[in-house]
Amino acid sequence: MAHIRLALCQVDAVVGDLEGNVERVLAALAEADAAGADLAIFPELVLTGYPPEDLLLEPAFVEGCRRALSRVAAGTTGRCAAVVGFVEGERDLYNAAAVLAGGKVHGVWHKEELPNYGVFDEHRWFTPGSGDTPLFSIAGVVVGVTICEDAWSPTGPVARQAAGGAELVVSLNASPYRRGVLQERERMLATRAEDASCALAYVNLVGGQDELVFDGASMVFDLNGDLVASGPQFEEAVVLVDLEVRHAFRKRILEPRGKSAGKPLPVVTVSEPVAPEPGRLLPGAPRLGAVREVYEALVLATRDYVQKNRFTEVVIGLSGGVDSALVATLAADALGAEHVHGVALPSRFNSSASLEDATQLAANLGIDFSAIAIEEVHQSFLELLHPSFAGHAADLTEENLQARIRGTILMALSNKFGWLVLTTGNKSEMAVGYATLYGDMAGGFAVIKDVPKLLVYELCVLRNEMAGRDLVPKAILVKAPSAELRPDQKDEDSLPPYEVLDPIIEGYVEEDLGVGELVALGHEEATVRRVIDLVDRAEYKRRQAPPGPRVTSRAFGKDRRMPITNAYRAAHEGRPTLP
Amino acid sequence: MAHIRLALCQVDAVVGDLEGNVERVLAALAEADAAGADLAIFPELVLTGYPPEDLLLEPAFVEGCRRALSRVAAGTTGRCAAVVGFVEGERDLYNAAAVLAGGKVHGVWHKEELPNYGVFDEHRWFTPGSGDTPLFSIAGVVVGVTICEDAWSPTGPVARQAAGGAELVVSLNASPYRRGVLQERERMLATRAEDASCALAYVNLVGGQDELVFDGASMVFDLNGDLVASGPQFEEAVVLVDLEVRHAFRKRILEPRGKSAGKPLPVVTVSEPVAPEPGRLLPGAPRLGAVREVYEALVLATRDYVQKNRFTEVVIGLSGGVDSALVATLAADALGAEHVHGVALPSRFNSSASLEDATQLAANLGIDFSAIAIEEVHQSFLELLHPSFAGHAADLTEENLQARIRGTILMALSNKFGWLVLTTGNKSEMAVGYATLYGDMAGGFAVIKDVPKLLVYELCVLRNEMAGRDLVPKAILVKAPSAELRPDQKDEDSLPPYEVLDPIIEGYVEEDLGVGELVALGHEEATVRRVIDLVDRAEYKRRQAPPGPRVTSRAFGKDRRMPITNAYRAAHEGRPTLP
Repeated sequence: MAHIRLALCQVDAVVGDLEGNVERVLAALAEADAAGADLAIFPELVLTGYPPEDLLLEPAFVEGCRRALSRVAAGTTGRCAAVVGFVEGERDLYNAAAVLAGGKVHGVWHKEELPNYGVFDEHRWFTPGSGDTPLFSIAGVVVGVTICEDAWSPTGPVARQAAGGAELVVSLNASPYRRGVLQERERMLATRAEDASCALAYVNLVGGQDELVFDGASMVFDLNGDLVASGPQFEEAVVLVDLEVRHAFRKRILEPRGKSAGKPLPVVTVSEPVAPEPGRLLPGAPRLGAVREVYEALVLATRDYVQKNRFTEVVIGLSGGVDSALVATLAADALGAEHVHGVALPSRFNSSASLEDATQLAANLGIDFSAIAIEEVHQSFLELLHPSFAGHAADLTEENLQARIRGTILMALSNKFGWLVLTTGNKSEMAVGYATLYGDMAGGFAVIKDVPKLLVYELCVLRNEMAGRDLVPKAILVKAPSAELRPDQKDEDSLPPYEVLDPIIEGYVEEDLGVGELVALGHEEATVRRVIDLVDRAEYKRRQAPPGPRVTSRAFGKDRRMPITNAYRAAHEGRPTLP
Repeated sequence: MAHIRLALCQVDAVVGDLEGNVERVLAALAEADAAGADLAIFPELVLTGYPPEDLLLEPAFVEGCRRALSRVAAGTTGRCAAVVGFVEGERDLYNAAAVLAGGKVHGVWHKEELPNYGVFDEHRWFTPGSGDTPLFSIAGVVVGVTICEDAWSPTGPVARQAAGGAELVVSLNASPYRRGVLQERERMLATRAEDASCALAYVNLVGGQDELVFDGASMVFDLNGDLVASGPQFEEAVVLVDLEVRHAFRKRILEPRGKSAGKPLPVVTVSEPVAPEPGRLLPGAPRLGAVREVYEALVLATRDYVQKNRFTEVVIGLSGGVDSALVATLAADALGAEHVHGVALPSRFNSSASLEDATQLAANLGIDFSAIAIEEVHQSFLELLHPSFAGHAADLTEENLQARIRGTILMALSNKFGWLVLTTGNKSEMAVGYATLYGDMAGGFAVIKDVPKLLVYELCVLRNEMAGRDLVPKAILVKAPSAELRPDQKDEDSLPPYEVLDPIIEGYVEEDLGVGELVALGHEEATVRRVIDLVDRAEYKRRQAPPGPRVTSRAFGKDRRMPITNAYRAAHEGRPTLP
């Protein structure tokens, strides 16, 4: 029986900020060291941030990362060893993890399993590792090192390192949040630990990066696959875990693959065991509910996008509807109410109730609020275009015009005062193209672009519950959704009710279900075909949308890469086409 | 000595148009058959179009492609065999090529080498082939089949098939155009044929697909590596080639790799030789000059983007400057002058010369032309914003406002009349962010977004030479570039001269050169750092730009994937940062 004190260092690294990331790592390491930890484990690519994308093609960036690692290595002067993710190589680049202690590098693991699906493109930059890394004796415990996807392979590095003698495998991760992923990860990691009869320490990145948000929630499993410790979700933390490691009867059911399968691996001694200090094991972090998890993901994503891009203030067009209400609430929680500017932009088609609701919302949140009526500019445009439009009836053109005037005003405020514009379109609208390019789609960050409309309501209700009062006014939650771009307009004039629409979008976009499968689930065929057709035809709009955080299992953006020029009509599936 | 008549079928396939692509293939096959060809060779993935991207994740699409292949196979009822690119598989998908004749499938090759760099993401969708495909005896010639990247490997499938007995290797391609790629391809393919002592027939796709344009320019090499036939660039064609195939002394210098290296491969007989008909070998297509090549690439890309997205008319804001002049000229060549609408949108800052130049250009091109003065709408916005802006000096905000008013007007015309807006920003502007989001960047297709400013001038001069007159008025070519958003503004007030700017952008963006390397090339250090910094900071704008065709060796877009949230400052390279 050996004892090791682990520090799971789930830090919020900034992409490209090599110097800042060194400071973040050294600060967490000092905290771990002071707490008597034997091993501080950091996330995947913590020195570059994740994903660094094509920065990896700049030789100076990779060289900078090498220097950053040297600086962290030089900082391991205390008793605590560290495992740190970085980039290594020249012609062939590796997604790497270094074992550091006593001021030097004791060994490096190269990630073997490179994900190249969903939001991941790791084959673009990295060469897979060859697995010829030793194990490391740290405080008397034999430790193997792996990176993220490595642990998802049932016969891969975890099984091989355990078979080769590892008592503990550490897993460095940059695993983005999506609904339900925590349960999926926990189940997989528990199975992996139990299959390998080996303890497993999983450490994940925290923070927002463009369209991704990393949720931390680090975890430690014992060799029976039981969860023995967990870190908080969506928060930076140094989580201390006292782990008793046993050499157990190996009940492994899966044979590891590869040339060194089952053979003892060489072991490099990094540090000797010491008498354990009094335990400082933190209690497991409480788990958030499913909706709360999404709320916190959006808050963190918004805070990090705004602040990492060196903005402090944001501006939001407040329509009096539920989408902008949610975005304003999220922004106030992310940045502080004093940094949020709400602007109502009423036209002749907005009800007075809308303006009252927006005003009430702003008051509830304590954010800055003003109203700028667009009527005169709108008139001025209509007069200007009158000769060109003579003989043509009013149509979507005039509706889009209002949205674009609003977008132009918000961007003028952004330019003049340095406020980042947050857009308020939800996933249901983005899916079917119920949004105006350069109008309500104009802005820097699309906070809820991956949040379906029904979930928008759930999030508002949750936040009101958390507040113990109607932060989002009840009037906003009960009225029928409307773009208010023509008299008495309702979303349901143009779209199926969201109770019908959202599940069809989820099935088509997130689960690749076709017409037949959606109809088999009970959806009306004509509606299914119509919705799929709308989704397919709106790709050109989505391509010019601002970035926004992924919270579902498939977001628009780099998670779903569709051609704009595309003659395939999934809506016609099952209709006689090709014989 | 055996004889084979090849038909290089460089068709313009449409992504997702399974039925249409079957028709295109069958029409070319009928033409090949009527001309007495033994083998019709089609491009890579001709049945899906390239790249089909995440359509490949929809099971119904892959099933549709299987049915499309069956229909083509059923159409091979004449003497001519066909090699056709398609997608095959269920759980594992393959980028495949089928050998078809006599109404059936004789064999299928799975692409082995999957590109996952630059604009390519093939590991996202495809599993690499295992190479266990036989050779095919067609008209008495032993033929091997490969797909695109397969031929770029010096020890890969071409060498192996030749060593295994192939006398001719066919290569199906979807190889996008970029400046200089034709020479690069020709040199590589000649070397490959000579190394393998094997004839090589390269067939490439034609047409525009979002940000890519495929240039055709199919080629046949004999076993000495000599070019014996070539197809036209940027045009659909069925190119007939009579090829004499010899079993030659093998002077191969590179050993093929893999388990079947050097072993004779099995041969499936597809068709018997017949007495050759009188030759119909076409003369080699003339090669275009370097600038002309770019011009034709832009014309084809524009025509295909507009028409494949089912537009017929386009609208362009004509400023009187060189960028919009080039775009209007390209559009007129791509679509016919009668489908191009030019609109001048003068403000108080536009010189009367600008309006005159725009008017003259439109007259020269024979396109529709109108002018809509934005002064009153501009005033109306300024008055509306006056209370908000009180106490703040005029700045970029007011300049951007004009650009956004113009964008809104062009989009209103687009919405009302169904005209696609072509934007006019060039690569130099896109690089340094000298453009207004939702203003001059608003539109459906950014025709010259990958054309540096100096090349914009070269293209105009070329087109005037082609016309034998000043289609683009000389006044437009000689005046100093200006955005005309404030009095007496010139681009050079904000940017280095384009003679200085363009080479720095090319070095940094296309060649990954750092500050040190650019200074070593003779550029001034302060200018280099300034330009790199501008490029890095403009990523957020580029992310919301419309698509436009790649013509250089690295375009912005999926060819260069940079994080928006990015603290790395390449401009600071060489300055003391990390010790």
